[in-house]
Amino acid sequence: MTTSAAPSTSKATPKPSPVYAKTELDVWTLMNQVAASVGAVNLGQGYMSFPPKEFIKHAAQEALNENTHNQYAPPRGRPGLLGQLATRFTGRFGRPIDANKEVSVHAGANEALLSVFTAFLEHGKDQEVILMEPAFDQYTPNVIMAGGKPVYVPLRVTSDKDPRENVISSDDWKLDLAEFEAAITEKTRIVVLNTPHNPVGKVFSREELTQIGAIAEKHNLLIVADEVYEHLTYGVEHVSIATLPGMWERTVTVGSAGKLFGVTGWRVGWAVGPEKFISATLSAHTRIVFTSNTPLQEGVASAFRQAPEHDFFEVQRSEYETRRNRLMQVFDDIGLPYVVPNGAYYLLVNAAKLKIPRDFEFPDFIVERGENFKLVYFFIKYFGVSGIPPTEFYSEPHKELANDYVRFAFCKTDEGLEEAAVCLQKIKKYLKETSD
Amino acid sequence: MTTSAAPSTSKATPKPSPVYAKTELDVWTLMNQVAASVGAVNLGQGYMSFPPKEFIKHAAQEALNENTHNQYAPPRGRPGLLGQLATRFTGRFGRPIDANKEVSVHAGANEALLSVFTAFLEHGKDQEVILMEPAFDQYTPNVIMAGGKPVYVPLRVTSDKDPRENVISSDDWKLDLAEFEAAITEKTRIVVLNTPHNPVGKVFSREELTQIGAIAEKHNLLIVADEVYEHLTYGVEHVSIATLPGMWERTVTVGSAGKLFGVTGWRVGWAVGPEKFISATLSAHTRIVFTSNTPLQEGVASAFRQAPEHDFFEVQRSEYETRRNRLMQVFDDIGLPYVVPNGAYYLLVNAAKLKIPRDFEFPDFIVERGENFKLVYFFIKYFGVSGIPPTEFYSEPHKELANDYVRFAFCKTDEGLEEAAVCLQKIKKYLKETSD
Ligand SMILES: Cc1ncc(COP(=O)(O)O)c(C=O)c1O
Ligand SMILES: Cc1ncc(COP(=O)(O)O)c(C=O)c1O
Repeated sequence: MTTSAAPSTSKATPKPSPVYAKTELDVWTLMNQVAASVGAVNLGQGYMSFPPKEFIKHAAQEALNENTHNQYAPPRGRPGLLGQLATRFTGRFGRPIDANKEVSVHAGANEALLSVFTAFLEHGKDQEVILMEPAFDQYTPNVIMAGGKPVYVPLRVTSDKDPRENVISSDDWKLDLAEFEAAITEKTRIVVLNTPHNPVGKVFSREELTQIGAIAEKHNLLIVADEVYEHLTYGVEHVSIATLPGMWERTVTVGSAGKLFGVTGWRVGWAVGPEKFISATLSAHTRIVFTSNTPLQEGVASAFRQAPEHDFFEVQRSEYETRRNRLMQVFDDIGLPYVVPNGAYYLLVNAAKLKIPRDFEFPDFIVERGENFKLVYFFIKYFGVSGIPPTEFYSEPHKELANDYVRFAFCKTDEGLEEAAVCLQKIKKYLKETSD
Repeated sequence: MTTSAAPSTSKATPKPSPVYAKTELDVWTLMNQVAASVGAVNLGQGYMSFPPKEFIKHAAQEALNENTHNQYAPPRGRPGLLGQLATRFTGRFGRPIDANKEVSVHAGANEALLSVFTAFLEHGKDQEVILMEPAFDQYTPNVIMAGGKPVYVPLRVTSDKDPRENVISSDDWKLDLAEFEAAITEKTRIVVLNTPHNPVGKVFSREELTQIGAIAEKHNLLIVADEVYEHLTYGVEHVSIATLPGMWERTVTVGSAGKLFGVTGWRVGWAVGPEKFISATLSAHTRIVFTSNTPLQEGVASAFRQAPEHDFFEVQRSEYETRRNRLMQVFDDIGLPYVVPNGAYYLLVNAAKLKIPRDFEFPDFIVERGENFKLVYFFIKYFGVSGIPPTEFYSEPHKELANDYVRFAFCKTDEGLEEAAVCLQKIKKYLKETSD
């Protein structure tokens, strides 16, 4: 019996890869823990603190009665859900979408994104992916896991008003097209486009999308359109880049039932695009999770079927608009400026005017994550309202662009928002002029 | 505006990576489609054709009533489920298991396995993973996706009886320890151990596990113990390798609520092991799917709580034993030998004696996948009973070891098994002596 390996000492134990051995917590878990430890009103993570509508909940409960709905779904997804998605996107995209070729169901939009990156990137080739900052925090690790290299282009605030003193619009955050194109190299394969945007609330205009699309076409990039907030826009139109001339052929559009139906824990998402893109995405998906859970896929299919009779999407949109307006009003009243979101359910508040008392103490696990984490930590501990530090959505060289901001989520109950309003009154005493 | 990339011609569109651009269907989807096309009795894919017990279904339905159970779970898992798993493994492993450190919840055992491989392997380093063949078909793509290289060691049939003529035991399939150790190199990091074994039904004995463990220790390998069928053994004891002296320190044990509670579509699995292994596994998991679905995690937690009052595991085990015995009897009656499974819910039937009529025609998509696919296709089309070709569980050089076998799943209703029994009667006319 021979072997080429030298035996190890008997006490050695296996070691995880250095990439995953780090024990740094993801920002959601970390901030949820801090918030829970002081019983803060949680406007941090983007989950709904109100229950789903009864018909949605019942749809899932009903689905569980059928045995096939408790067993493996086909990797592509349950036929009923694929059919509903095909109908929805046939309407939204103005072209017939084939349920069995151009759609796949995933374990959340998150796993849809990872599947697309995995399907299009190769390890060891240094292929690049353009991410616009702030970028949803999963993009970077997902691109890296798939073998790609993220390249960051920050959205730039173009307003002539000082955002530390004035309310500005999410429209004022713009992609500088020259900066975008300059970031493209021979190795660039993908650009990720998130609209409506988390955390800025920007909804890209048709004109902006046309310009971005033209550059993507010129360099033959795949566009990964993350449209998980497609249903939430306030006074502006959501445009899917896949509907612009020539763009279907280079776009995979990703969506999320968690966001669309207010059930972030169901982990059902989807990808829509040309057959050859979706078939590769599906191969990756089949190996990543095999299939998304069946009962909640069926629940989502049934919720889609019932949505029209409840005017669900219209009612939901206007409820979110009311929540948005209320939270903006709270900060108007306090005197902290923010970025008016045209879509999604986040409010970026600029807290540059806030003076943190000199004697306030920060724990090491916060200090080591930078100024912005300190700011958010202060909000949680001092005012009892939690948010998310948007620097987590930036690469190291661009983090300072977000140091003044706190992201608050308004997918929360009226009671939660009113409670936050009361807590946040205390801020008034801590405001200074930014000029000092 | 400058760019280093040459613009592409305007008609070029992005191309998926060659790894995922292949359109070959996974074996489950392919065989399900063939089975459905002729209305065959489906003994192929390992999902239950009977409904889950009422209390399990109700547990999930109840969970949906609570809003927090519809929203994101912590990446590690819902506290209630983590607690139940800690209790279960504290009992099974005879050591206190910490719910917040030594357990993580996954989107099925599949995603638990991918998370472990991702946590321990690095791309570009040619690290090797030993897989015993037949090997569950997801191991190979999951190891490769995580950057590793599968190295195959087939289980060898050691019986002195000819398995083409005689019923043999799953115990007769043995790992040749010399062959195993010879396959280990300096690059080997992991050995995957599946017990009870799919598709052989082998339950590794304490002695075998001790020997495998000693070799793993000598070469400092991580043992990934896939024990998704731990609850299904027939007349033999299931031993977790993690309970043997010195083995906890080098083992991650993976399990599946889908298998344990008969709800393969719920996509809830778990990993249990030392804190530093689970924390790396959890980092990978957080980036792969972020978190498993919440309502069904809560459903599983509640099912665990209620299982004792229903004698659930005892009743379930004996029901499966009855199904196993019935299916073995069917083949005894027909005169086709098989491998007696000591665990899991599959029966490997040796169909070497079956004579396929010369004029029977096979479609190209079957022919291109080899002799064993042809055999299974013949069963489906001619006898109306579907199985799975076990060559799919082998690497190319070892596929011929499985050419005579068909895998039938017995996680099926009595009616389904009886229907199969009737259909399979036709086989008798097609048996030949293997000596010709
Ligand atoms: C921009 C964006 N994309 C994707 C996701 C992930 O969606 P899912 O919960 O369906 O995985 C989120 C969740 O917050 C998001 O904000
Ligand atoms: C040996 C083995 N491991 C893992 C799995 C995957 O389990 P899950 O459905 O929980 O992902 C299976 C499913 O058939 C299996 O047979």
